Formats: sequence, structure tokens, C-alpha cells
Amino acid sequence: MRKVKFWRVKPEIRILGVDDGPFEPRSKGLVPLVGVVFRGGRWLEGVLRTYIEQDGTDVTERLTDMVSRSRHRGQLRVIMVDGATFAGFNVLDVKKVFRKTGLPVMIISREPPNMGEIRRAIKHLPRWRGRWKTLKGAGKTYEVMTRSSGAPVYMQLVGIKRADAEKVVRLSSTRSLVPEPIRVAHLIATAMVRGESYGRA
Amino acid sequence: MRKVKFWRVKPEIRILGVDDGPFEPRSKGLVPLVGVVFRGGRWLEGVLRTYIEQDGTDVTERLTDMVSRSRHRGQLRVIMVDGATFAGFNVLDVKKVFRKTGLPVMIISREPPNMGEIRRAIKHLPRWRGRWKTLKGAGKTYEVMTRSSGAPVYMQLVGIKRADAEKVVRLSSTRSLVPEPIRVAHLIATAMVRGESYGRA
Repeated sequence: MRKVKFWRVKPEIRILGVDDGPFEPRSKGLVPLVGVVFRGGRWLEGVLRTYIEQDGTDVTERLTDMVSRSRHRGQLRVIMVDGATFAGFNVLDVKKVFRKTGLPVMIISREPPNMGEIRRAIKHLPRWRGRWKTLKGAGKTYEVMTRSSGAPVYMQLVGIKRADAEKVVRLSSTRSLVPEPIRVAHLIATAMVRGESYGRA
Repeated sequence: MRKVKFWRVKPEIRILGVDDGPFEPRSKGLVPLVGVVFRGGRWLEGVLRTYIEQDGTDVTERLTDMVSRSRHRGQLRVIMVDGATFAGFNVLDVKKVFRKTGLPVMIISREPPNMGEIRRAIKHLPRWRGRWKTLKGAGKTYEVMTRSSGAPVYMQLVGIKRADAEKVVRLSSTRSLVPEPIRVAHLIATAMVRGESYGRA
């Protein structure tokens, strides 16, 4: 797959960070998906919000629509998502997001994805083979250190070279071990659902 | 009324910035009220969310409850609110918030409050005399320049000295003419309702 050419990764590159809100297990319903437009790891410039179905298959379309109709679309350079599954096992097709939006996508996680465990969990969902294929298509996992000490984060990439992605992750991890756009999207999405943010200090 | 003694206003003082979401005129319903915990004007540490009634009288109680039950309560030093009326003319009793939470409250606005206009607008609401009295009780308006050039912002204060409040406003206005906690609370609250943030560049 082609990659976007970054001539230089600017410290104030506009990143869309994406995370979902929590949901009650065994309840059925819509879960908020929050996008934050961040200037590098420095400040928040905008917030986007849509809804996705718990254990549904609509996250790819909802995210693509949210990005495409945003007034920030023209300034965005890269999308960072917190894992590849949202609202349970609503699996994001990162290749499709790249094709439809033209923006590289970086899947960020705190732990290397445990594919065996995921496979067992999704096997009782409708259309599980399609979900599984999409997840496998997200490609190779790279470890990256965002600080000189502490735990690494893990990334899977589409449309961006590993060296450029490492720069983006490092420059945006200004306040914690994870990039600011991901940390802040998480705070907002959890507060929307629960009334107060939690996790990821 | 007594004032909190600030020995020194630290650059990373924890501020709660509060703003409401937009609502459709003539619709009746609940409007989100968003609080963001900011370290000075530097970074977001937490997000709170509650709901208030359009043109209701519950904002004082809802805000007080939201602050009191927050796990950030112990670290907070001051509350900044975007104007004194929320979700239409749900009037915040800033003195009561101060009494109940022990936290000084600063009302921030871009324009000096036009009391004649507000009086005309609230006169057809239930219990308008109470609302009016509460608004008048918010006290004197001070102008403060957050930058060496550009427009000033206006503040009304309870529980904090003017000189300390000026320091808090200036140190937190890092990205625009208004303090970051207010700017970011606005972005989140508007995105929650409309799907994308707007206003206040």
C-alpha cells in the first residue's frame, strides 16, 4: 500500500486522536466515538463526536464520515486510534479509512495486541470472519519508546513510514507515555458516558 | 465575603473551567455542563460532565455536586465559569458555589455583562426576581488584558482577590485571549451536542 510522503514531521502537525467511551457489558446501544484535533502534543484545537454500535460493524464508516465532514479535514495530517476495536468488537478497517480519507492511520496500544485472545472473543459474534480478516490486515506491530525510561507503546501503521510514525508518536507524547491526542480523547469519551474521566494518568 | 488566601499563584495551579453546550431554542430539555481540570494554561488533566435544565434553576446545585464528588476535588484551587447564565437563563449563584465548595469562583466573559438586556430577557421566566437578585449578587466587573495587544476579557469574582485573579487569568490564557480551561470546556461541550466543536479560535 502506498504511503504518504512527509517531507518533515512538524512539531505542530495536526493529529486526530480517536477513542471510544465505555459501555455497560450486556447492554445494547450506542457508544460515543470521540476525535480530538491536536497540534502535535501541545494543544487541543477541536473536538469531534459520533456514535457507534456496541459490537457492531459501523466504526469504519462512522469515523470516515466524521473526518470527511469536519471543518478540520484540510489541516489534518494523520489519524491515531486507541486500538483497532471499538465499543466491544466493532473493528476498524484502517486500510479503508486511509483509502477514503487519504490520511495515514496509526493504531496505538499500551500492550501488544493478543490475537489469540481476540480471536476467541469475536468468534461468537455475527460476521466474525470478516472482523478477523480486517484485524489481521492491520499489519505488523512495532514497539516504540516515547520516553527514555518507562514502558513502550505499540503501533500498527497504514500509509506512513515507520520512521515518520515514530517521530509523530514521540513528539506528541508530551505529558504521559501515550500521545496526547489519545490520552485526551480517552478523557473526554469516558467523561461523556460516566460523568467523570478516568484512567491513563 | 471572605477570600481564599493564595500564598503564591503557581503556574500549574489546578483550575476547573466550566461551560455549557448549545441547545435548540424553544426545545425543552437537558443541556450538558462540562468541567475541565486544567493545570494552569498547560494541559488537561480530567473532564467532568453533568446535565442542567434549559432555563431551569438547577445549575448551582448541579455544578456544586459535580465538583464535590469529583476525584479531582482535593487538587482544585479555583473555578472559572463562562458567564453566569447557562442553558439559557439558568443562573449560577457563585456565592453559593463558593460557600459549598470552598473554591473561589471567577466569572469570565468576552463582553461586559449587559444587565439591562439580561433583565428584559429573564422577566418572562418563572422566579425571575430570584434569578435577577442572584445575577446582581455576582458583583463588580473587572477588565483584564490577557495579552499585550488584543481585546480584554471581563471577570467577576467571589472568594479571590483581584490581583490573584488577574494572575490566574493571565497565566492560563496560553493559546488565545481567553483562559484555556474556558476555551477547552467550550470545545468539548459544543462537540457533545453538535458532533463538532465550534467558536472561540
